[in-house]
Amino acid sequence: MSALYERPPSPSSGLRLHLNENTAGCSPRVLAAMRAVTREQAGFYPDYETAHERVARHFGVVSGEVLLTNGLDEGIHGAGYGWLQRGEAGGEREAVIVEPAFDMYAAATTAASGRAVRIAPRPGFDFPLEEVLGAMTPATRVVYLTSPNNPTGLSIPHEAIARIADALPREGVVFLDEAYVDFGGRTVLGTPAMRPNVMVGRTFAKAYGLAAVRLGAVIGSRTVIDRVREVTPPYSVNVFALAALAAALDDEEYVAWYGGEVRQSRELTYAFCERHGLEYWRSDANFVLFRVGPHAPALAADVAARGIHVRDRSSQPGCEGCLRLTTGIVAHTEAALAALEASW
Amino acid sequence: MSALYERPPSPSSGLRLHLNENTAGCSPRVLAAMRAVTREQAGFYPDYETAHERVARHFGVVSGEVLLTNGLDEGIHGAGYGWLQRGEAGGEREAVIVEPAFDMYAAATTAASGRAVRIAPRPGFDFPLEEVLGAMTPATRVVYLTSPNNPTGLSIPHEAIARIADALPREGVVFLDEAYVDFGGRTVLGTPAMRPNVMVGRTFAKAYGLAAVRLGAVIGSRTVIDRVREVTPPYSVNVFALAALAAALDDEEYVAWYGGEVRQSRELTYAFCERHGLEYWRSDANFVLFRVGPHAPALAADVAARGIHVRDRSSQPGCEGCLRLTTGIVAHTEAALAALEASW
Repeated sequence: MSALYERPPSPSSGLRLHLNENTAGCSPRVLAAMRAVTREQAGFYPDYETAHERVARHFGVVSGEVLLTNGLDEGIHGAGYGWLQRGEAGGEREAVIVEPAFDMYAAATTAASGRAVRIAPRPGFDFPLEEVLGAMTPATRVVYLTSPNNPTGLSIPHEAIARIADALPREGVVFLDEAYVDFGGRTVLGTPAMRPNVMVGRTFAKAYGLAAVRLGAVIGSRTVIDRVREVTPPYSVNVFALAALAAALDDEEYVAWYGGEVRQSRELTYAFCERHGLEYWRSDANFVLFRVGPHAPALAADVAARGIHVRDRSSQPGCEGCLRLTTGIVAHTEAALAALEASW
Repeated sequence: MSALYERPPSPSSGLRLHLNENTAGCSPRVLAAMRAVTREQAGFYPDYETAHERVARHFGVVSGEVLLTNGLDEGIHGAGYGWLQRGEAGGEREAVIVEPAFDMYAAATTAASGRAVRIAPRPGFDFPLEEVLGAMTPATRVVYLTSPNNPTGLSIPHEAIARIADALPREGVVFLDEAYVDFGGRTVLGTPAMRPNVMVGRTFAKAYGLAAVRLGAVIGSRTVIDRVREVTPPYSVNVFALAALAAALDDEEYVAWYGGEVRQSRELTYAFCERHGLEYWRSDANFVLFRVGPHAPALAADVAARGIHVRDRSSQPGCEGCLRLTTGIVAHTEAALAALEASW
């Protein structure tokens, strides 16, 4: 299998600024809610009705238009299994993937026997709308988009999303991954770009600090969400994720606080890049991509030796010589920038 | 979609003896281990290495021969997506399902575009080996077996499992669901029936009382397990499940205690059936199936009105007029039998 997702190394010590995690973790109120789960609740298959009503309200849709998933990864796989499997004629179905892209899109495509059609980035990562439209064929069933993008942090214009949705074959769907939209950019939910063949993916891993609890959601028309439900196990969301959900949505203060840290951290990182004359991209996400040059891998290793993990993205298309730094908690960003400075 | 799994009703009150859950919940030590999860651990993508080593030791295999899953449902789906998707020729691949069977096998088959070939039960549920062998075709890719079976509680002879494995096309696999083996019967792990094309499914939902935490495992040859890994999201097991795992395996006393309750509860249920002259099956699982006759649905409703939920299995092949009672905690079984008596 060519596109198996490889888990990045999980260091046992040091500051993890390489996986876009919230390094503060989840909110104390959310932790308290999860610790209130009882032995009996752990032992019974969960009921999802209340949680779906709550999360639907949060996203401004009705309950049948949203499905909670075991992390957003399950939603990405749902798009693959729901739309990319071969039909009776046996021909491959295609997923368009706009590089640089999260590795899971290709992994989910391969898992569903689909073919990944990769769109190379433009210089500077200007969104390649014409190239995406040109890559579509009658076999196109999924277009994976990420806004804000990982690893660039750039948002996709809504008109581009709408143009792609409108150009898709009738059986196709846009999977719009908004994992990082809580940090900037603008969701398509509730806007004219939210076409009936657009499925939005959201996660509680990032802004809410719940990566290890596994909680994501897909939002779309009933037809689209029903199709994901058909290819997804019925009890995939665990009881701690359900307990976390309501508490997380209620604790707006915590998400606002972390968002403030992210904004400050991005500015500190831009200033560092300016000081060193580095190319960088202004990010709508909780990370910043910047180009340090051919010594990117060595620099990442040096910084890791100082106990701070940043992600060398040199091998991704368009990202030659680039590092990606999670820009969350200000104190952590400061430590990372100091370590980069010392390793320079 | 014809075979979408329908979640059974989840009553908000009453004694739940309809889903084969451990009504005591998880062990207090396991709960304590889960409550020790920190905010930071909730926020970071989990590392699975230690957990895989621990669970491999438990099952007497090496780490690459086991994959932890988000409940065993994910393993059932993994068998579907890994083996049943159409190839280039487009023809349907087949899953053999021995009725009466857990609904998830058909749901996973349909989700993977496969065709479910259903084997009708013999009178008395004697294992239909010849019928299974006779149903195999060159398109057979998965044979779903459950031992002990749900809902009958009967174990499948090891020779039958080996015969089926040996008769499969080279690309096929036996998915042997041992979800209930902790209560009786005998695992194929470590026996001659454990052929390289047999994949064993296990769960921590039942004996360990962790249904809502979502923790299962599939065990098999490296080739088989690698294939499941390729079709499964890389971070599907949550951090609470990982915290629970070690504590659950260490707390042998708890599982032994629950096992004792199950054995007593089964005997009480058999005695009830004898007293009423009902047909029943001696079970290796934590439930007992017995035939009350055409008023099974009405009886289940009457008992539910008394606050106790039992499962009417009348609509399953071979189970006409049958109820399935979870036989776990003795006090709960006594309450259920009293309610049945009162509703008789």
